[in-house]
Amino acid sequence: MRTERLQTLADGIFAIALTLLVLSLPVPKGSHRLARDLLEQWPFYAAYVISFVTIAIVWINHHALMDGVARADRTLMELTLLLLLFVALVPWPTGLLAEYLRDGSQNSAAAVAYGIVMMLMAGSFTSIWLWLARAEDLAHPELRPRIPVAIRRSAVGPTIYAVGTLLALLSAPAAFALFAAAAGYFALSGRTVRLPTATEGATT
Amino acid sequence: MRTERLQTLADGIFAIALTLLVLSLPVPKGSHRLARDLLEQWPFYAAYVISFVTIAIVWINHHALMDGVARADRTLMELTLLLLLFVALVPWPTGLLAEYLRDGSQNSAAAVAYGIVMMLMAGSFTSIWLWLARAEDLAHPELRPRIPVAIRRSAVGPTIYAVGTLLALLSAPAAFALFAAAAGYFALSGRTVRLPTATEGATT
Amino acid sequence: MRTERLQTLADGIFAIALTLLVLSLPVPKGSHRLARDLLEQWPFYAAYVISFVTIAIVWINHHALMDGVARADRTLMELTLLLLLFVALVPWPTGLLAEYLRDGSQNSAAAVAYGIVMMLMAGSFTSIWLWLARAEDLAHPELRPRIPVAIRRSAVGPTIYAVGTLLALLSAPAAFALFAAAAGYFALSGRTVRLPTATEGATT
Amino acid sequence: MRTERLQTLADGIFAIALTLLVLSLPVPKGSHRLARDLLEQWPFYAAYVISFVTIAIVWINHHALMDGVARADRTLMELTLLLLLFVALVPWPTGLLAEYLRDGSQNSAAAVAYGIVMMLMAGSFTSIWLWLARAEDLAHPELRPRIPVAIRRSAVGPTIYAVGTLLALLSAPAAFALFAAAAGYFALSGRTVRLPTATEGATT
Repeated sequence: MRTERLQTLADGIFAIALTLLVLSLPVPKGSHRLARDLLEQWPFYAAYVISFVTIAIVWINHHALMDGVARADRTLMELTLLLLLFVALVPWPTGLLAEYLRDGSQNSAAAVAYGIVMMLMAGSFTSIWLWLARAEDLAHPELRPRIPVAIRRSAVGPTIYAVGTLLALLSAPAAFALFAAAAGYFALSGRTVRLPTATEGATT
Repeated sequence: MRTERLQTLADGIFAIALTLLVLSLPVPKGSHRLARDLLEQWPFYAAYVISFVTIAIVWINHHALMDGVARADRTLMELTLLLLLFVALVPWPTGLLAEYLRDGSQNSAAAVAYGIVMMLMAGSFTSIWLWLARAEDLAHPELRPRIPVAIRRSAVGPTIYAVGTLLALLSAPAAFALFAAAAGYFALSGRTVRLPTATEGATT
Repeated sequence: MRTERLQTLADGIFAIALTLLVLSLPVPKGSHRLARDLLEQWPFYAAYVISFVTIAIVWINHHALMDGVARADRTLMELTLLLLLFVALVPWPTGLLAEYLRDGSQNSAAAVAYGIVMMLMAGSFTSIWLWLARAEDLAHPELRPRIPVAIRRSAVGPTIYAVGTLLALLSAPAAFALFAAAAGYFALSGRTVRLPTATEGATT
Repeated sequence: MRTERLQTLADGIFAIALTLLVLSLPVPKGSHRLARDLLEQWPFYAAYVISFVTIAIVWINHHALMDGVARADRTLMELTLLLLLFVALVPWPTGLLAEYLRDGSQNSAAAVAYGIVMMLMAGSFTSIWLWLARAEDLAHPELRPRIPVAIRRSAVGPTIYAVGTLLALLSAPAAFALFAAAAGYFALSGRTVRLPTATEGATT
């Protein structure tokens, strides 16, 4: 399969998952103090932004990765579909975490669910790098010597979400803050996770 | 019509149907035992995974088919749109089956509905192969001798879902297990349903 | 603006509108006679199929039209966006008509709403042909002599939906049957609304 | 990153946000005076049209902008994703404003929310122009002398929405009328915000 077709499906799923996040934002019905009700549902806005930024970063990194891939085999395709399975799932724990963030007795379960989905999404991304390390002929020659570094860098994601999931058992707000910090850190330090594209590698 | 335009619409519908599956996952409202409530709705997670994998496999097989198609006539286009009509429908029986799987008195109807939609989806896929056998000039020359094998292989899908639909009348959990096994089998034995692309065929 | 970019947005909106139709299909909650409840909501399945087929035909015709267009001006772009505004709206009257079809006292209003949206959608499509007749330099030379025929043919759509809207005031089921017949007729007699593409025209 | 990939994601999100607007249109349940209920929910139809037209115009302007961009750096990509974050958000304040427009005591909060989201969307668009003014090598040579004019023109959008947000504190219907007038004005006077594409610039 040519990688561009896989890329088209992936781009579609990324775009739809990003846009479906809006469906988790509640429109209060029959409110008699709408301004206050809107302000009080701030966890929904925060969760929307955090999940949007996180998916957008995975999209950027996935493009950087695919730029270095010359052709896709069946395993690469299946690992990509596994990644997309979790990307498409993100709107669900986003709504769940926002719904329960301020309910002190139940928010741990919601934050754990969020952490697990994010960990599985980040982990499937790492698994694509691991497969490229084994099936080296799938990668452009310039990319190959950099794969070990890419694996180490991409393992930061699942590690952070594993820590966040454990932290959620103690304190959901602390885990939420960690998820937000991770999104902000990845967004601002973009270059640390980005790999040179095949073209850039060739000119180095 | 050039096949690539049909392919673009198809890719869009596959991507959206895959992503809309997430809307069937419930966010419990005002739960006082959220961890338990989340665990108890496991049929929704299982149904999400099964339907996602099944649609993804149909997408892979549809791409392999279209790679061997040189041009589309009106009938091919209409059969593809029929396939897409059922692909787009999948989120509905997915939510229905998950909702009723553990309700012993009503789950047969839900599993029958799931089986029928899947059978119609798989059947429309087979009908595309049957049309290619009749309108042979639509297919690349390398593909033509392989069409009879492709028809036999692609008939496995509707057969399994017909059996599953009948099985659902006796036991919905058994039918659910069959749908899950079918998704897993197709995913792991991918190569058995995959056809060589025109390019690969040319080099053989 | 190059027409292909407008086409990409249009293809996206067609694909999403087709797929969002599934959200109008209800999943009964806590039913104690699920098989019967599923059968009794047949208007939803019928409305899903009718709207899916209708949008798919508009998509086919829109592609045939755009194949004959050499470049887009601002008016062509705005008329296309007007068409897309109504295409994106179709899931709403679809759910509305299905919800009220069997309620004899209220179904006229629902069928009128369905007819109006479809009439506006079909009318915007005709308006694109009318604009091409005025701004002839937008069309490929081979297409130009055929535009008057295309206008007459494309005027059939809004006429049928205007008749259906009036009929809905007398009998919603009769209007529903007309909408279904129109979809079936357009699907089966596809060639009557299809125009030759620029390439085909050139070889004639 | 090649700009076309960013464009693909952007086109996808624009198409989905435009189509998800339909989900804010309510289907009344069990109505006994459906015709009247449908007429009384006119704010939903008006809000649908206004938001659809507004997003469509942002899409047109974004394409005109990207046509003049030779390559994207990380900041351009992030500002585009910021724009898309607010584009994807539009269905939410659209439903909110429609829901409360006729509730004289609560509609200010809803109109303020609508104004803020629109202001942030229009502001992110302006920020892309501001970045192109600083990182001039990203723009095609023909575009560069026109950037200052483009910045002034694109600043009209956030200014109007800032005024609308303040106006909403006094009167939500007046703000709603301003949002509608802005959409109509931009749609009809399209050429004032449109920049020549690189190709057109070259032929001038």
